Amino acid sequence: MRKVAVIGIGQTPVSEHWDKSLKELAGEAVFAAMLDAGRNTADGLFVGNMMSGSLNRQGNLGTLISDWVGLHKIEAVKIEAACGSGGSAFRSGLIAVASGEMDSAIVVGVEKMTDAKPAETTAALAAAADADWEAAQGLSFVAINALVMRRYMHEYGWRHTDFALFSIAAHANAANNPNARLQFAITEADYQKARMVAEPINLLDASPIGDGAAAVFLVPLDNLNTTISRRVYPGITVVGSASATDSIAVHDRKDPTWLSAAELSAKKAYSQAGLSPAEIDFFELHDAFSIMSALSLEACGFADRGSGPRLGCDGEIFRNGRIPIATMGGLKARGHPVGATGIYQIVEVVQQLRGQAGANQIEGTRIGMAQNIGGSGATIVTHILRTE
Amino acid sequence: MRKVAVIGIGQTPVSEHWDKSLKELAGEAVFAAMLDAGRNTADGLFVGNMMSGSLNRQGNLGTLISDWVGLHKIEAVKIEAACGSGGSAFRSGLIAVASGEMDSAIVVGVEKMTDAKPAETTAALAAAADADWEAAQGLSFVAINALVMRRYMHEYGWRHTDFALFSIAAHANAANNPNARLQFAITEADYQKARMVAEPINLLDASPIGDGAAAVFLVPLDNLNTTISRRVYPGITVVGSASATDSIAVHDRKDPTWLSAAELSAKKAYSQAGLSPAEIDFFELHDAFSIMSALSLEACGFADRGSGPRLGCDGEIFRNGRIPIATMGGLKARGHPVGATGIYQIVEVVQQLRGQAGANQIEGTRIGMAQNIGGSGATIVTHILRTE
Repeated sequence: MRKVAVIGIGQTPVSEHWDKSLKELAGEAVFAAMLDAGRNTADGLFVGNMMSGSLNRQGNLGTLISDWVGLHKIEAVKIEAACGSGGSAFRSGLIAVASGEMDSAIVVGVEKMTDAKPAETTAALAAAADADWEAAQGLSFVAINALVMRRYMHEYGWRHTDFALFSIAAHANAANNPNARLQFAITEADYQKARMVAEPINLLDASPIGDGAAAVFLVPLDNLNTTISRRVYPGITVVGSASATDSIAVHDRKDPTWLSAAELSAKKAYSQAGLSPAEIDFFELHDAFSIMSALSLEACGFADRGSGPRLGCDGEIFRNGRIPIATMGGLKARGHPVGATGIYQIVEVVQQLRGQAGANQIEGTRIGMAQNIGGSGATIVTHILRTE
Repeated sequence: MRKVAVIGIGQTPVSEHWDKSLKELAGEAVFAAMLDAGRNTADGLFVGNMMSGSLNRQGNLGTLISDWVGLHKIEAVKIEAACGSGGSAFRSGLIAVASGEMDSAIVVGVEKMTDAKPAETTAALAAAADADWEAAQGLSFVAINALVMRRYMHEYGWRHTDFALFSIAAHANAANNPNARLQFAITEADYQKARMVAEPINLLDASPIGDGAAAVFLVPLDNLNTTISRRVYPGITVVGSASATDSIAVHDRKDPTWLSAAELSAKKAYSQAGLSPAEIDFFELHDAFSIMSALSLEACGFADRGSGPRLGCDGEIFRNGRIPIATMGGLKARGHPVGATGIYQIVEVVQQLRGQAGANQIEGTRIGMAQNIGGSGATIVTHILRTE
């Protein structure tokens, strides 16, 4: 397989885009990525999206978007893996280019969630869980995560307030990201007094939904020197890519507080990249809920089992810490337009590696990891990118 | 890229499976394909499905099904391209195995449509069209095809009854297929007096919806000699695979009666296989409506432009004709469980190439083609399979 480089990125702000349709949002991100890459066509388009069929009454997004952006006739397809749709779509595009099946691919993640009634959006999100045994029992997606968080607190003795730093760090970073949904910092007092959603998860433990799209442009590494971005940025290649699954229902797991699919996909990606967790400079993790930050850090080898919140309490997740996370705000504060999130993560890794992260720039960073999760730990896709 | 062989197939009957859930249907087909292949695990699972989010309130089918069939931890993902989801999923699995990213893959197409109210199903199907400019104008999916058929009849002077043989041939074949939804023959008189759906499309021009699942097991060709099926069946390899797109809305096309994406993907597949249309023994085409049979035969080089119905009238589409189509009943009479259809087509090609087609067996066949269409000609995926 050929090595693959990311030569273009694009994103819309995560917001309530009531004036833009699904395809318009996707188009904005695709055009931005093409402009950034200096390319006016691609061999294939891969779309990450979860809910267009239920919330937007629109299927076949691959062709809808390729048609809309004027990439007529090219191969186009949509990939869905619940909240892990973006990362899964990136992996599909990556395999297509790495294998030689295509010489270029655009991957766009898009979701438009805020036009629907909140109850409709909540029901559509619950489709990420087991419809028969979780959603049908009245468990919303946040309720499932609340059960996991409560169990984790019980097992390891953490208090709710010990998770505050995950949200504080994400909001601090989002305050400097013009594309973030919640561009404001929060304090520990804010966190403690936030409205309860599903105990123990309160409003500042949970990521906001949103409308948004993010896109990347992929080419084989040996094409890199012919690209415009080559003159400006370091070459950025994908050195690890893996996906793994767990049971879809949390109650079917031996230990609901351990993300075995994160462990498995991260280990595969480390092995491909020839890297250990110690060599990862920063980690765009899937902080849909603050508990997920703790679990992801543990499963990927950055913290011992049961000790994830310690990294937050010790400040190691901030920009100058051992393992910065959510460096542009994460799901928590950049926002979580579900099927787009996995591509926002990749775009943000590239922003850091290129030195485009503004006030959030990590100095001298060369290796970044992104991890996208579909369902409550059911489908987990890990990517490692590095500068040449 | 490595050559890939199909070593296992499985399918459920297409029916109203009110007693089986989406994952149970998929599981039946997956287990049948694994049993047929003599394998008890695979590296990846690719699911073709269009409407589970809207009709079944269930997303993340990749992991849902891999979990259900006990293929824990493996990579799993869902691919959606409207009615072309099955063919697109097959192509994703094929690329994963051909590239060396995986050493085996199961591809399953599944759709469960008959539990919902008819109006819900019709609305969900309309998501395959352009939601803003087609569905929003009140155009159902059958209405769009009716406009195309009317235009075609006007352009080329065909009468409605000239399309009868497409439906008669499909039903004749379905009568011998225990997995078909409509296991009965029809006459020209039946066709002419059938109830009108959207003029000129009547009930016997249109394929029925249904619940069903079909699955295939893929391995690299160099693995073939280690398989159980090797002892019984000829090796069957995929020699052509391509996907192309057109505008999603029919009104955006220069000629709404020409399937340019079918032409493009078929030409690519022929080129990869080193074959011409004359060398294709039979063609599992996407006869969602009788007009689509005519258009597909023309775009793929089996008939001149505007002359597709002639192949029907001349009997060339029957088992002993020049280019048999819908050999196990096609969408028209085997049934069209949308996201599963593309995999049913591949399964049926393999049945023919193995000599397992029973009363519908084409003698001495060695090369079969399957073409799956998403939307009204928007996304078209072509595969050519042959015996060694």
